[in-house]
Amino acid sequence: MNHRKVDSSIYVAGQLPYKGGELLGHGILGRDVDLETARELARQAVVNCLAVAAEAVGGLDDVRIVQMLVFVASTPEFGQQSMVADAASELLIDVLGENGRHARTAIGVASLPRNSPVEIQMICTAA
Amino acid sequence: MNHRKVDSSIYVAGQLPYKGGELLGHGILGRDVDLETARELARQAVVNCLAVAAEAVGGLDDVRIVQMLVFVASTPEFGQQSMVADAASELLIDVLGENGRHARTAIGVASLPRNSPVEIQMICTAA
Amino acid sequence: MNHRKVDSSIYVAGQLPYKGGELLGHGILGRDVDLETARELARQAVVNCLAVAAEAVGGLDDVRIVQMLVFVASTPEFGQQSMVADAASELLIDVLGENGRHARTAIGVASLPRNSPVEIQMICTAA
Repeated sequence: MNHRKVDSSIYVAGQLPYKGGELLGHGILGRDVDLETARELARQAVVNCLAVAAEAVGGLDDVRIVQMLVFVASTPEFGQQSMVADAASELLIDVLGENGRHARTAIGVASLPRNSPVEIQMICTAA
Repeated sequence: MNHRKVDSSIYVAGQLPYKGGELLGHGILGRDVDLETARELARQAVVNCLAVAAEAVGGLDDVRIVQMLVFVASTPEFGQQSMVADAASELLIDVLGENGRHARTAIGVASLPRNSPVEIQMICTAA
Repeated sequence: MNHRKVDSSIYVAGQLPYKGGELLGHGILGRDVDLETARELARQAVVNCLAVAAEAVGGLDDVRIVQMLVFVASTPEFGQQSMVADAASELLIDVLGENGRHARTAIGVASLPRNSPVEIQMICTAA
């Protein structure tokens, strides 16, 4: 299932940058995916998180983001995970304003399902 | 400590595929551990998570799984982390039915404690 | 933002081992950072987590740690992530006593923001 609720908290399962049933990118930052591409993929992944949250709550009006974990498939030398994650953070604040602010952790992982460059997991609440 | 409770939520510490005091596997997916072995290790790790939850709650009858994070030690080329995690998800649903359904994130990490191929962290509630 | 509150829970954003505006180390365990250095970096990262929690709650007296995720930038061969994380866990218990006990997960990641060797994320409550 793509989310689970506990009281007012909604745990959103890790989302990949799928759009229209297609994974929009493949590969590893620092090797075969550039920063701007990864930022676009992060935007798509967080849009998918928001879609799950909206479906869980019945719209985005009452959604408040709590925590976001951004996984970026990275070489050992890549250190710009925060710049990838910033694209997702900025989108949340653009869409939700103050409710979009969140505690964030960005890390570089060895690889992700289906060789996606980005995966995002989120916790939010229904205000 | 192996878990911490907050209200009705139980945070289970990351569990490795130990059985009878022995770690059942070592290594990295895509290099020296095959998919079926990793799925068996994921089953053992999630059984260990359930044991912690059962001890915290006093049995599994009232346990509802909320979120599961599955870490799979992976090469940069490995992309089947979801198939590893599916083995743990299926076990939870086999054991707990609807209460076993959960929001899941599967990622591929560089390495894990004691060179375990799999580690699983879980949040659950006492219904 | 560096934290987000939900009821009595405080989600602390991933903290790097910054001190006085400077990141105290760079690199990967198993290649260019030794264990004792990483343990010192883990202590600094968790001190930064505590500073966020103290600011959120208005002091540490009422802070109880719930869960800690310790990310250690690691080679595929490195397997001592738990020994790195132990330094952070021990500091929490030294400072907070029983309130410092927590459910922990330690993993080895490919790389971290700004090539930090360690990053720590925490959930705590205001007792």
